[in-house]
Amino acid sequence: MKKRIITLGEVMLRLSTPGHQRFVTATGFEAVYGGAEANVGVSLANWGCSVAHVTALPSHEIGQAAKNSLQFAGLDTSHIQTAPGRMGSYFVEHGAMQRSSRIIYDRFDSVFAGFDFSDLDWEEIFDGADWFHWTGITPAISASAARVCQEAVDAAAKLGVKISADINYRRNLWQYGKQPLEIMPELIRPSHLIVAGLTDFENCLGIKASRYSEACEEAKSFCPNLAYVATTTRKSISASENRLKGKLWNTQTLLKSKSYPMTHIVDRIGGGDAFMAGLIYGLLHRGDQEALDFAVAASVLKHSVPGDANFVSLEEVDFLLDGENVGKLLR
Amino acid sequence: MKKRIITLGEVMLRLSTPGHQRFVTATGFEAVYGGAEANVGVSLANWGCSVAHVTALPSHEIGQAAKNSLQFAGLDTSHIQTAPGRMGSYFVEHGAMQRSSRIIYDRFDSVFAGFDFSDLDWEEIFDGADWFHWTGITPAISASAARVCQEAVDAAAKLGVKISADINYRRNLWQYGKQPLEIMPELIRPSHLIVAGLTDFENCLGIKASRYSEACEEAKSFCPNLAYVATTTRKSISASENRLKGKLWNTQTLLKSKSYPMTHIVDRIGGGDAFMAGLIYGLLHRGDQEALDFAVAASVLKHSVPGDANFVSLEEVDFLLDGENVGKLLR
Amino acid sequence: MKKRIITLGEVMLRLSTPGHQRFVTATGFEAVYGGAEANVGVSLANWGCSVAHVTALPSHEIGQAAKNSLQFAGLDTSHIQTAPGRMGSYFVEHGAMQRSSRIIYDRFDSVFAGFDFSDLDWEEIFDGADWFHWTGITPAISASAARVCQEAVDAAAKLGVKISADINYRRNLWQYGKQPLEIMPELIRPSHLIVAGLTDFENCLGIKASRYSEACEEAKSFCPNLAYVATTTRKSISASENRLKGKLWNTQTLLKSKSYPMTHIVDRIGGGDAFMAGLIYGLLHRGDQEALDFAVAASVLKHSVPGDANFVSLEEVDFLLDGENVGKLLR
Amino acid sequence: MKKRIITLGEVMLRLSTPGHQRFVTATGFEAVYGGAEANVGVSLANWGCSVAHVTALPSHEIGQAAKNSLQFAGLDTSHIQTAPGRMGSYFVEHGAMQRSSRIIYDRFDSVFAGFDFSDLDWEEIFDGADWFHWTGITPAISASAARVCQEAVDAAAKLGVKISADINYRRNLWQYGKQPLEIMPELIRPSHLIVAGLTDFENCLGIKASRYSEACEEAKSFCPNLAYVATTTRKSISASENRLKGKLWNTQTLLKSKSYPMTHIVDRIGGGDAFMAGLIYGLLHRGDQEALDFAVAASVLKHSVPGDANFVSLEEVDFLLDGENVGKLLR
Amino acid sequence: MKKRIITLGEVMLRLSTPGHQRFVTATGFEAVYGGAEANVGVSLANWGCSVAHVTALPSHEIGQAAKNSLQFAGLDTSHIQTAPGRMGSYFVEHGAMQRSSRIIYDRFDSVFAGFDFSDLDWEEIFDGADWFHWTGITPAISASAARVCQEAVDAAAKLGVKISADINYRRNLWQYGKQPLEIMPELIRPSHLIVAGLTDFENCLGIKASRYSEACEEAKSFCPNLAYVATTTRKSISASENRLKGKLWNTQTLLKSKSYPMTHIVDRIGGGDAFMAGLIYGLLHRGDQEALDFAVAASVLKHSVPGDANFVSLEEVDFLLDGENVGKLLR
Amino acid sequence: MKKRIITLGEVMLRLSTPGHQRFVTATGFEAVYGGAEANVGVSLANWGCSVAHVTALPSHEIGQAAKNSLQFAGLDTSHIQTAPGRMGSYFVEHGAMQRSSRIIYDRFDSVFAGFDFSDLDWEEIFDGADWFHWTGITPAISASAARVCQEAVDAAAKLGVKISADINYRRNLWQYGKQPLEIMPELIRPSHLIVAGLTDFENCLGIKASRYSEACEEAKSFCPNLAYVATTTRKSISASENRLKGKLWNTQTLLKSKSYPMTHIVDRIGGGDAFMAGLIYGLLHRGDQEALDFAVAASVLKHSVPGDANFVSLEEVDFLLDGENVGKLLR
Repeated sequence: MKKRIITLGEVMLRLSTPGHQRFVTATGFEAVYGGAEANVGVSLANWGCSVAHVTALPSHEIGQAAKNSLQFAGLDTSHIQTAPGRMGSYFVEHGAMQRSSRIIYDRFDSVFAGFDFSDLDWEEIFDGADWFHWTGITPAISASAARVCQEAVDAAAKLGVKISADINYRRNLWQYGKQPLEIMPELIRPSHLIVAGLTDFENCLGIKASRYSEACEEAKSFCPNLAYVATTTRKSISASENRLKGKLWNTQTLLKSKSYPMTHIVDRIGGGDAFMAGLIYGLLHRGDQEALDFAVAASVLKHSVPGDANFVSLEEVDFLLDGENVGKLLR
Repeated sequence: MKKRIITLGEVMLRLSTPGHQRFVTATGFEAVYGGAEANVGVSLANWGCSVAHVTALPSHEIGQAAKNSLQFAGLDTSHIQTAPGRMGSYFVEHGAMQRSSRIIYDRFDSVFAGFDFSDLDWEEIFDGADWFHWTGITPAISASAARVCQEAVDAAAKLGVKISADINYRRNLWQYGKQPLEIMPELIRPSHLIVAGLTDFENCLGIKASRYSEACEEAKSFCPNLAYVATTTRKSISASENRLKGKLWNTQTLLKSKSYPMTHIVDRIGGGDAFMAGLIYGLLHRGDQEALDFAVAASVLKHSVPGDANFVSLEEVDFLLDGENVGKLLR
Repeated sequence: MKKRIITLGEVMLRLSTPGHQRFVTATGFEAVYGGAEANVGVSLANWGCSVAHVTALPSHEIGQAAKNSLQFAGLDTSHIQTAPGRMGSYFVEHGAMQRSSRIIYDRFDSVFAGFDFSDLDWEEIFDGADWFHWTGITPAISASAARVCQEAVDAAAKLGVKISADINYRRNLWQYGKQPLEIMPELIRPSHLIVAGLTDFENCLGIKASRYSEACEEAKSFCPNLAYVATTTRKSISASENRLKGKLWNTQTLLKSKSYPMTHIVDRIGGGDAFMAGLIYGLLHRGDQEALDFAVAASVLKHSVPGDANFVSLEEVDFLLDGENVGKLLR
Repeated sequence: MKKRIITLGEVMLRLSTPGHQRFVTATGFEAVYGGAEANVGVSLANWGCSVAHVTALPSHEIGQAAKNSLQFAGLDTSHIQTAPGRMGSYFVEHGAMQRSSRIIYDRFDSVFAGFDFSDLDWEEIFDGADWFHWTGITPAISASAARVCQEAVDAAAKLGVKISADINYRRNLWQYGKQPLEIMPELIRPSHLIVAGLTDFENCLGIKASRYSEACEEAKSFCPNLAYVATTTRKSISASENRLKGKLWNTQTLLKSKSYPMTHIVDRIGGGDAFMAGLIYGLLHRGDQEALDFAVAASVLKHSVPGDANFVSLEEVDFLLDGENVGKLLR
Repeated sequence: MKKRIITLGEVMLRLSTPGHQRFVTATGFEAVYGGAEANVGVSLANWGCSVAHVTALPSHEIGQAAKNSLQFAGLDTSHIQTAPGRMGSYFVEHGAMQRSSRIIYDRFDSVFAGFDFSDLDWEEIFDGADWFHWTGITPAISASAARVCQEAVDAAAKLGVKISADINYRRNLWQYGKQPLEIMPELIRPSHLIVAGLTDFENCLGIKASRYSEACEEAKSFCPNLAYVATTTRKSISASENRLKGKLWNTQTLLKSKSYPMTHIVDRIGGGDAFMAGLIYGLLHRGDQEALDFAVAASVLKHSVPGDANFVSLEEVDFLLDGENVGKLLR
Repeated sequence: MKKRIITLGEVMLRLSTPGHQRFVTATGFEAVYGGAEANVGVSLANWGCSVAHVTALPSHEIGQAAKNSLQFAGLDTSHIQTAPGRMGSYFVEHGAMQRSSRIIYDRFDSVFAGFDFSDLDWEEIFDGADWFHWTGITPAISASAARVCQEAVDAAAKLGVKISADINYRRNLWQYGKQPLEIMPELIRPSHLIVAGLTDFENCLGIKASRYSEACEEAKSFCPNLAYVATTTRKSISASENRLKGKLWNTQTLLKSKSYPMTHIVDRIGGGDAFMAGLIYGLLHRGDQEALDFAVAASVLKHSVPGDANFVSLEEVDFLLDGENVGKLLR
């Protein structure tokens, strides 16, 4: 039986300059549609899960394009709402060598940020669902977005749907008058899986810890259902070359993955979402260490795929995990 | 001596699908920067005038790209202001055959709309200027935009700089709580040249007339400095084929241009701005009928040029006016 | 309630040279996925119908891309089968002026042609369905394709699902040893709607008639459920300019549409499928004359849309039917 | 037996802006290699003739690219010479509507212009040849180019190879100190076929005539072997729409072709060369009227083909000559 | 005197996604024409050899494009046959980082596979030839392809033309009912040069050896004319980074090349063909160690060239062999 | 107060093949306009300096495009001269791996080379200027170019404007009959800053030294105003990977920068100009060691930017100098 996963979050139009062109000299942009939570959904759909994404989009053709783009990847879009207004968007410039990649956000006042989701029937949405995934970006956008997030979390908790939260604290958001600590703890509390680094723990749960497992234990004492906490560590040698590893705390042990060299990076955006999706998939289908290893390998492969979403198959992740003759030509 | 022209107005990022691709299937956008008033400025700079454009742009790289783009065309950008915030933008889908071209605006809450221009020194800006051009789009955007428009008009009037106003009434704008008739008449009053159709007259000056010259006379009775009123008439046979003609009222006569067939249209956006620029250029350098003819021919050529701005030379407009062997290969 | 439509047929990879480039000098191809029946499905989905497409695709990534492409347009792909093998494909060169457009087919021995569909549960597929659409291409491809077509037609007839058949006789197909007259009559017999020209009638039903309504009457005498017969007439002035009109026989009258000039053609492939879809939509939602007019207008608009499928909205078709200021810029 | 044709002339790098982009805003150029005489050769090779092109190219990779490009079309390049130096080139901007197409030449001081061809063995080159073709561009370029042209003409005349001369007078060339009338008459004298208009006759043969057949008769009195004189008449309605017809004088009659409308022009460069090639092919394989008709139809089709060279088959020209359902989709 | 080389084998249309795009999201393909044996021919032509390629192509325009593409590189295509049918093709997705490059073949039932070559006059084809090259792909495709391969090998052996065989065993081919060991030994027997790895030796000659020189000796005992055996060893660190070295057994010694790091790989397809061509060129013009070194360096450079064929000059290979300041800018 | 810098030199059209395509197979070129001195000017303008570039351009549209391109970057083009004639240009092929990048120059007989600059009013040009920059390319091009260079240097020296000279000796230029040693010493003599390597010193000043500081001291003894001498050292591991470091002699010490690895190079052309601009900026605004470090870091970043000019901000250079988490994603 296919696992059923529900994701909630804004979908944006991403406009990236071709190749390594700079913003200032660009005469065009490549366009894809994505968002942290939808990206997780696309990964899971690519791996055979049944995924529905919940969001609100503009009722104009650019909004339609975003919706079709999620359908392309096999997502159930039947719960997507539309309204007049603008599409959140962002601009990407891919760095190279010592020059950083750049993102310029243009997401304020979007249809998603302003949408009143109170008519959503979460019981119906969660019918048959195994998992619900949200990120800390949603409650940071607007009061109404925080509200729908809370409603979804409450419903999932009530219905016994497992919840994952990618804390993903971003200071530049949170401009609608609330502080993270006023909103986030109650949202995070029913989580089964949290992805967070030390900064996320501090800003969103008020947990100040110096060691990672210590932060995990504190989180566990606050979150009664918490079974897993995870994060990745990225070392940036240049825009073209990073190293990546991950760890997963399963209330008992802090498991670690191998550390992957990532050179000749094609597109690093969505790398974290690929890890998140890998964890969800892994924890639903494999053991703990296998789940972590799968998640890190999936994230590494994402860096080779243009766009936000990780169009990579189960077989490809497993081929990397096998580690034989990596990168060889497959006929 | 080069004529000096000052233009004021928002510059936007235009994102258009390549060829005749539809929004929903587009995987990229061509990008240019333009706006009704800046487009007029670019035309005039291409024809040898000295032009400065006044606007406010985001302080990020997309804003820098817009500024550089105006410099490319030779515009003086030294009066351009910057601030954090978003770039107004719009999406274009070029129609073909019986399928219309589409524009989706995404210009609310831009840096320009929110900018406080009160520190601008209009006396300095108008130093040496022969002409000031604004359009009805600016006062429609926001209270602060209407205010800077009024300040500019007042300063120009006081300094004896000729003023042209392209009324360009758009119902979808005007969302900040004011009605056109509360704002526009005072702005329009000192004009030397007005470009307006009957709808514009009615909505922005309260003039209800059935014949065009009647509306002109009424406008004259309200605007003491008014010397010219003009407009174009476009007949749309299909997205690929239109007809265009213009008329110019010089307080005495209603002059008419020939009617041009326009088939195989490449890009019709900016056609009105090209007409406007042609009128300003013509009235500054040629006789009345010649000015009208020049303006219409310039607008016709614009329909063959990709992008918002009319990159067409004086020689090319005159070549069309000569009418010999139009479109022949020039070696 | 949304109407539910089932379509059956091969989906191919279409490789077209960019712009008006010739095959021999092309250094790349634009790629879309389509097929006569799936194109009909995409149109109907764009107009708000619930559509499922039934086909067989290669199990490799090119097959996956085809499937995702149908999902993009909102089609239900849950009944699509996969197997190892090749993807039917075809090459397109867009003509211009007096130079014809060219298609080179490369569709033999595809997964669809060889697939054994006998495990399909047509009762389940037709559950809740209002309409089933097939074309004469499917039984022309292979014995197994003819067989699945017969099974589908039989099931639809038994379950009271209305059936449309686009006869679409192509001599170059039919290479597996059967003649059209051995196969087609039984397939066509239960049809509610037939789209066919005089040649189609002759080759696939053995009806030799000189006037169209005469052929329709003969078809009616053979097909007990037949309610409608339709066709289009295309006049080719050049590859860039055609004229199109349609007619619809409703057992009583031969209705005629207006004749549309089509100049500046962008992509004429799929024009017939757009007409077919328009008829199905129209007959399900509007009156007879309105259905015909809708179908022809939809087909005209298709000629302005790149690709096989008619990404055109209901509003756009109706805007053309209204006929006011066709092709004008919509903001 | 395949006819053997020898062509002589400069091959240039053509750099054209994509679509209808203007030079001033272009960020790239499409590149093809061509020249009036080589274009004739490519047409003839496409129609099954054996063609060798004689020229001189730079010894660097751009020169190599030009050579390979001729080989692509099947031309024998074994007589092509190389030397250090520059490639003649030219820039093309495709007009649209009333805006003319533009060519900017950058061909002075090329390897071809400066090459000393005195080592060429014309007897060997003409071995087995049926026809030699040159144009008035070559003697206009430089003294050495005029010299090799004379050597080739002399050898051809001596060996009984038929000679065609496309006079193609261009005032902007002829900058090396000689006047056309000092050079051209002797070159033209042994011609079997001349393509020339009244201006060409006047500038290159000193023939002032008001009617075309009168000029032909005068040319005949000067050129003892002259069997045919031909020209085309082009009417330019716009850059996108021309009309074309041709005439052929066969010492007895002035034959005329039908007049073709040419709308939706893709690329008009090389239209004259396509006519020239059509005449050579036609006169070698068909009757006089058929040759003229073939030449004009070939030229019309050229206007639909991107690039300088006429990649159009015999079948396609004949299909246009047949005139049934022109432009219809060929499967 | 230029060396004359004859190559025999299928030419396919290669369709590759641009950049590092995945198949599933690709909206277009870059197209080149190539095949293992023709790629060898192109390399040798680039290095000044006279090369004729023998194959069969579809008679439609895609086949013509393939033929022209070989002519572009200077190959003699006069022995190429045509027939109605399909073009073998394959799809390429360029990997990056740890993600492998992918090839999807679509070559069954091609014109080449089905062609009856029995009318070829191999004595005429080999007239003046120094070398004949074939690969193990050809006899794997079909019985008729194996037959023409045998005919060619027999004729070459009889005429004293040196023969090279690139064994290139591919299990996925060989689907027409024969086993490699039934066909390959007799084909390989008259070889002067064999390129094979241990797997190739085992599958195609039945030689099971653990050391390479041992396999070579066994091969020599079977092949009376065998003078050289060679192979390359590739280590795949990632799709972007490999290492390459080669070895050459000259009946006496097993020569070894240096090992090259290959990072920032652009296109690895055709790397083996470049090695093969380098060996043939080297053995015809240089000493044994020099030939091996040349072959490996040529193969390394191929990895930097987009497409199947190695458009690299003699000077460039020698520049790499010199090893001074590799990769420096050449003005 | 913004520093005012004057640059003098030819601007060329650069035509580069896309990606890593080879010249011989290229079907198009990317186009930018640049030149050693203008590139320096663009860098300085990007960093907030006021820069005027002096040159001569063709009066046709390609020349206009070059001028607009400089304006885009904010350069004052009011001193640019125009005349009929050709645009100097050059072709670029970006290498990869062990394959070198290639430049083919086509700059002889350009408008700049032939222009008579004697009417330039250098006193007016240098009004308010802080710095004048020239390179050894200009006097190498033609006698008139050498003359304007001398006039500029003389005027700058007289007016107390600091002078920088990038010696940049290129043997392939210097074809107009003069030797470097006849021209360069007098030009170099008034320099404040010289960028030169040992070869430059030998060929242009006759200084033969084995150690760099020795050459600097000798230069100082000849140039009374000399305050700084600098150069970079580049190690080429491959076309994709270099190392770069710089040194700066300030009459007292030979300062050295750190050595940067440069891997995944995007475009190395203009790297030297970026260093030159960095030095000028640094010496005008920072200390000696800081200036050198800034210059090398700026040059490193240039290698990541497509095109000739270094579109990199002050903040980006300083971010690299800070060295924390280089290449990390900036949101």
